[in-house]
Amino acid sequence: MGRSFFHAASASGYVINFPPADAFPVHNTAETIFERLEAKGLTWRVYCDAPSPASMTGIIHASRLHGRFATNFFTVADFLADARDGRLPGLAAAGVPGLMQLLAATQCGMSTDEFAQTAQNWIETARHPKFGRLYTQCVYQPMLELLEYLRARDFEIYIVTGGGMEFVRPWAERVYGVPLRRVVGSSLKTKFEMRDDRPVLIRTSEINLVNDGDGKPVGIHEFIGQQPIAAFGNSDGDLEMLQWTASGSGARLILLVHHTDAEREYAYDAHSPFGALSKALDEAKARGWQVADMKRDWNTIFPPVTR
Amino acid sequence: MGRSFFHAASASGYVINFPPADAFPVHNTAETIFERLEAKGLTWRVYCDAPSPASMTGIIHASRLHGRFATNFFTVADFLADARDGRLPGLAAAGVPGLMQLLAATQCGMSTDEFAQTAQNWIETARHPKFGRLYTQCVYQPMLELLEYLRARDFEIYIVTGGGMEFVRPWAERVYGVPLRRVVGSSLKTKFEMRDDRPVLIRTSEINLVNDGDGKPVGIHEFIGQQPIAAFGNSDGDLEMLQWTASGSGARLILLVHHTDAEREYAYDAHSPFGALSKALDEAKARGWQVADMKRDWNTIFPPVTR
Repeated sequence: MGRSFFHAASASGYVINFPPADAFPVHNTAETIFERLEAKGLTWRVYCDAPSPASMTGIIHASRLHGRFATNFFTVADFLADARDGRLPGLAAAGVPGLMQLLAATQCGMSTDEFAQTAQNWIETARHPKFGRLYTQCVYQPMLELLEYLRARDFEIYIVTGGGMEFVRPWAERVYGVPLRRVVGSSLKTKFEMRDDRPVLIRTSEINLVNDGDGKPVGIHEFIGQQPIAAFGNSDGDLEMLQWTASGSGARLILLVHHTDAEREYAYDAHSPFGALSKALDEAKARGWQVADMKRDWNTIFPPVTR
Repeated sequence: MGRSFFHAASASGYVINFPPADAFPVHNTAETIFERLEAKGLTWRVYCDAPSPASMTGIIHASRLHGRFATNFFTVADFLADARDGRLPGLAAAGVPGLMQLLAATQCGMSTDEFAQTAQNWIETARHPKFGRLYTQCVYQPMLELLEYLRARDFEIYIVTGGGMEFVRPWAERVYGVPLRRVVGSSLKTKFEMRDDRPVLIRTSEINLVNDGDGKPVGIHEFIGQQPIAAFGNSDGDLEMLQWTASGSGARLILLVHHTDAEREYAYDAHSPFGALSKALDEAKARGWQVADMKRDWNTIFPPVTR
């Protein structure tokens, strides 16, 4: 259902806003996002599975889409097969169940060592499409200087990321100078097994911690056990971490980076179609937290590539 | 059911071993553990709840126990009330559901700060019944000396305990010199909330990690992210931790403490009614791990109480 409403950006699944017809969805003849994709020459498929016998998108838009049921509507098993065989369309709508099954199929059963090696291999070769740099070179120069400043004064520095803990750990020390055990992130549960008389830890498909939003204070409490002295964020997913840090007794430093430089990097806040920095910015103003304006305050965004 | 079979130590629920009567349990007239408790002047109650309408113990032993249904069989809600009001009998059989509800009732909803304060208060006053010392004085002198030795050589020391992480953390630094963030233990999930405009972390009844047995390598991987150089254990619950540590590349030190001194402390291994050290001891012999024999190798068990 989300794919209809999300792409259509209106709660009744239309790409244009007008009052629903009587006996919706039977008389629903609104144009769909899929027809606009086709007009642009883009391919699409909707994948759904038990317990839904049919896609909610298909039901709501049945009068427009029934002719495409045979050609564009498939099961989540088909989704996995398409992903495996490189046949995914321009827009593949499989929802959370499809995504979880894809993650499980590609990562579940992998040992933590194998996964770390995969992460390491990828990060050493992948380049950012906009900046043409390795991802490990898309770090912020002011952040590196801050880390250096804090390290020189014996602060114990942690990375607290919404991203995958096991993905970031293998290269965190080389890129940020932060030891892997001080990287707190989202994670799957692992389980201990003996394979060929050697112990291994196997990644399961069960979520251990979503270290984002209200999960960040949970991760901080678990890994650090006390409120940090300073915390730095750049999105609404950091809000609860900043609140938790600020609630510690004594002086605290809270800083929010506002991405305002569309030319050198990106610009986003409450009024942007992507990124999410709205509530945290309001809270920063209300609580008197520091806000760094990237365009105004940062002389350099990225370090020299020779690094 | 467990309370019947466990206490009776025979799979058909008898305190003595003879073949089950025909049409068991209707004709089951075997003596029960409860009658032996009564013979010793001990009180007992069985608490059960939905989805069981009646206790399995009561059903199996109906012919002997039906006269006690009104006086000795209660609900889990009664169990919580009895626990709250200090009316628990000598033997309270409430099973895992009762235990979980008791934990949830006493700890769930408590903030992490409140729990830390409770743990701190308890540990500062509670004394060990056998040794008459504070629990914080029941630490092993050879362990303290080892910690000191490792610390002096810049080892980063972690406590990896099957016990509650949040219970041990508040006093780990004072007693062992180990900072709270280097205590890895079993834990409940916490959730972030704002209370009176202040952020708090609330303990839930959902288990986060059982840091024992095959959960110890999971905890080590999560908190340390690599195999330790050395690991020390004293029970079968440490076996997987020792295996995981030994599997790291390069030299590793694995040491198992065998409690062999019933006079000065305790003695237990494969042949003891309590404690559990059997598989780990076999593995130590097979793999050539160090085994410290408490009676033979330890001059001192506990530090002087003036400490």
